[in-house]
Amino acid sequence: MSKSIAEKLSEYTDSDYLPMHMPGHKRNIFDFPYLAPLGGKLDITEIYGFDNLNHPSGIFEESERIASELWGAEHSFYSVNGSSGAILASVRAVLLGKKLPKVLLSRASHKSVYNAVELCGARAGYLTPELSSFAFPLSITPDDVERELRENPDTSLVIITSPTYEGVISDVRSIATVCHRYGVPLMVDSAHGAHLGLFGVFDESPVTCGAEITVQSLHKTLPSLTQTAVVHVCGDLVDFETLAEQMRVFQSSSPSYLLSSSIDGAVRILENHGKRLLADWKYELDSIWERLHGLKKLHLFDADDGAFALDRSKLVISTENAAMSGTELAEILRDKYRIEVEMASMSYITAMSGIGDTHDTLSRFADAVKEIDRDTETAKRTDVLSFPIRIPKYVMSASDERMYEAEMISLDMAEGRISASYVYAYPPGIPLIVPGELIDRDLLDVISKMKRSGINVYSCGKDHVKVIK
Amino acid sequence: MSKSIAEKLSEYTDSDYLPMHMPGHKRNIFDFPYLAPLGGKLDITEIYGFDNLNHPSGIFEESERIASELWGAEHSFYSVNGSSGAILASVRAVLLGKKLPKVLLSRASHKSVYNAVELCGARAGYLTPELSSFAFPLSITPDDVERELRENPDTSLVIITSPTYEGVISDVRSIATVCHRYGVPLMVDSAHGAHLGLFGVFDESPVTCGAEITVQSLHKTLPSLTQTAVVHVCGDLVDFETLAEQMRVFQSSSPSYLLSSSIDGAVRILENHGKRLLADWKYELDSIWERLHGLKKLHLFDADDGAFALDRSKLVISTENAAMSGTELAEILRDKYRIEVEMASMSYITAMSGIGDTHDTLSRFADAVKEIDRDTETAKRTDVLSFPIRIPKYVMSASDERMYEAEMISLDMAEGRISASYVYAYPPGIPLIVPGELIDRDLLDVISKMKRSGINVYSCGKDHVKVIK
Repeated sequence: MSKSIAEKLSEYTDSDYLPMHMPGHKRNIFDFPYLAPLGGKLDITEIYGFDNLNHPSGIFEESERIASELWGAEHSFYSVNGSSGAILASVRAVLLGKKLPKVLLSRASHKSVYNAVELCGARAGYLTPELSSFAFPLSITPDDVERELRENPDTSLVIITSPTYEGVISDVRSIATVCHRYGVPLMVDSAHGAHLGLFGVFDESPVTCGAEITVQSLHKTLPSLTQTAVVHVCGDLVDFETLAEQMRVFQSSSPSYLLSSSIDGAVRILENHGKRLLADWKYELDSIWERLHGLKKLHLFDADDGAFALDRSKLVISTENAAMSGTELAEILRDKYRIEVEMASMSYITAMSGIGDTHDTLSRFADAVKEIDRDTETAKRTDVLSFPIRIPKYVMSASDERMYEAEMISLDMAEGRISASYVYAYPPGIPLIVPGELIDRDLLDVISKMKRSGINVYSCGKDHVKVIK
Repeated sequence: MSKSIAEKLSEYTDSDYLPMHMPGHKRNIFDFPYLAPLGGKLDITEIYGFDNLNHPSGIFEESERIASELWGAEHSFYSVNGSSGAILASVRAVLLGKKLPKVLLSRASHKSVYNAVELCGARAGYLTPELSSFAFPLSITPDDVERELRENPDTSLVIITSPTYEGVISDVRSIATVCHRYGVPLMVDSAHGAHLGLFGVFDESPVTCGAEITVQSLHKTLPSLTQTAVVHVCGDLVDFETLAEQMRVFQSSSPSYLLSSSIDGAVRILENHGKRLLADWKYELDSIWERLHGLKKLHLFDADDGAFALDRSKLVISTENAAMSGTELAEILRDKYRIEVEMASMSYITAMSGIGDTHDTLSRFADAVKEIDRDTETAKRTDVLSFPIRIPKYVMSASDERMYEAEMISLDMAEGRISASYVYAYPPGIPLIVPGELIDRDLLDVISKMKRSGINVYSCGKDHVKVIK
């Protein structure tokens, strides 16, 4: 087994080599002590023997090849600008040189997908998932994709999210089959599903289900540093060289060795110990799923009806029938149990598990939730919504020129206007409204309820939105 | 003095809070030991109390305000996608909504500037700097800018680099005056000049010389981790909100707390101890400049004729009159003295100093160079070029549609063809040829000489280039 990049870095930076190159801190943690716990001792630049992430021909090339083999891709590219950067690069690689291309995307896509589509001057058609009883988006169906492609056979790219932020897995295999019948490449934003497909422990990954492009955040579930991602490419509908070029466009030309080494570290530990690590994690997850299925007033979201699969590393717990809101549940967990969850919405919380979890961490979470469930009262909440119950009305293309002469007004005053900007809650970063949609009373009510519940809703500045004049 | 973000992170992650959120490693350095030296213990996500870099309203807002005050900007934005990401965001913020905008840029701009211009569908006009006797680009003159703007008063943005990779500082104040006479905003890629303007130790910064946008890499000379940058904005020709929005487009929506904390750490140490740290560093630099001025066969590049100022943190040493090439000098420094320099070209090396350097590090470098100078012979090199001696002939706009139907051919076969892609040496990442320029014999000779000298030249794949059919 060859040395990991982090090991090589350690050896190099422990040596007496004098750096007359960037970075300017020169690994001098005597004068800059805050750098030490941040990894400053290993922070170098592209020096001799350490390859170049943006033009891999050595240690990074080798590492990316291991990644391809692990997930079953033909080619894999590392990103130190997160899935966001990888999505911009992937979408542009497919659309480059096309005039006013059409993209079919899930309306519940992450903001970065919208950014990418807009950046490429593409026209967006939407796949609108059903909403769960908890009011978050469910799966995209092959039938929906079929219908839209039949009406728009000139579509250049289909983009869906699987698994979603809440763990909903679409039938990627069937969707890919539909796409390929129309000769259209399929890109799956699988930011939350990097662990899928590895050693058959969880569900299959989009990579082996026919998706041309699969974008995975490596830090979300696997043991890599935040802001790292990988793009897997398969098939002949996407040009690898063009994608490599676009990866270089959207990520720093001074990529962080801390981030890239952590990707390499994660990939190597998966290669060598992944089967055991994933199986152990899944075993613990199955065990707390069983315990949490016994909740009385709180309720664990599950794929009961079989219309979609579920990624069990996400624990979505509803407060719909309990005497508290999602944000209140999160507060109790934080204040009384010192447990911080991923996201709190009006009617549920999302807790995220990762490969770093253990029997102890997951049990501590399950114990706390069980105890809260025992102590709380039953009560029907009347304000259970977090994602708009319906998608706002589509009035105008987001690429319409009037978008650029929009005016900024207070959200309070925006009823009946056509939005020229995005409004979204973060997390998860799925737009409540996108440019070209009508801002109606329902949407404004949802936004103000969310804000009252302490949810971060972002528009332009704090409380403004751009609208068409 | 309020606590730094890194200190707050340390306190938090030392506590017993259980993370049921991303990242998936859960700071578990027992199972994932490679994460420990990479800063994994402090790698968290946007949890309660830790603000959101992409929507700052707490600790990041405070930190960015300190940065603005330090450099004298009206507003400052942090980037964890390097200067590259910040440049994409800045250019797009200015050009958004403009039809086929014109941008006037230095032909010696970094690749990321070209990427930004292309991404925005802008037409590029070039400011062509003179070349030094070492064959790298010198300053952009106010007269050049004036002439080009007179001919193209409908220009939307002027972009120059100052200081350059080799430390050449243009007369930004006069250039800004010219730009403003035409009502055009000036953006300065000051990736290599973050230390300028602080406490009056080095030259003035573009921020206070009238540039609307100044992009600085914080890691290149200051004590922040690699891949960090800051954008300073001034004046009323650039909309701050639009820029904030674009910063969010081009950087990860999972920004690394390691990177952002290191920016905060650098800004805070500068606020509190910057004057002394910079003065000490400058004192040591002045001292080795004096010593290196005494070189006999090697030669330290200086701004002898006063046509431009020079950033003395960069040490460019010519081998033109010595019996070795730049790449050979770099090899001797590496093999015999264990000193790694920033860049080796055919006829010179560039060594970069940073705020982390000390009396000992700089003396060790100067001693080595003096010794090599003493031991080497005098000899006139005949192949002294690294940057093309002239800019290739401009034949066609880079936004011409024919670019998208280009064909890939071997570089050897490309003489007389019009390029549809970039060819550049990295470092420094300035294109040798850009789309729309003629590939002639001279350029191909330069490229093959560079490659023979061991310089990394990047085109499409290893040895190919896209050309117009």
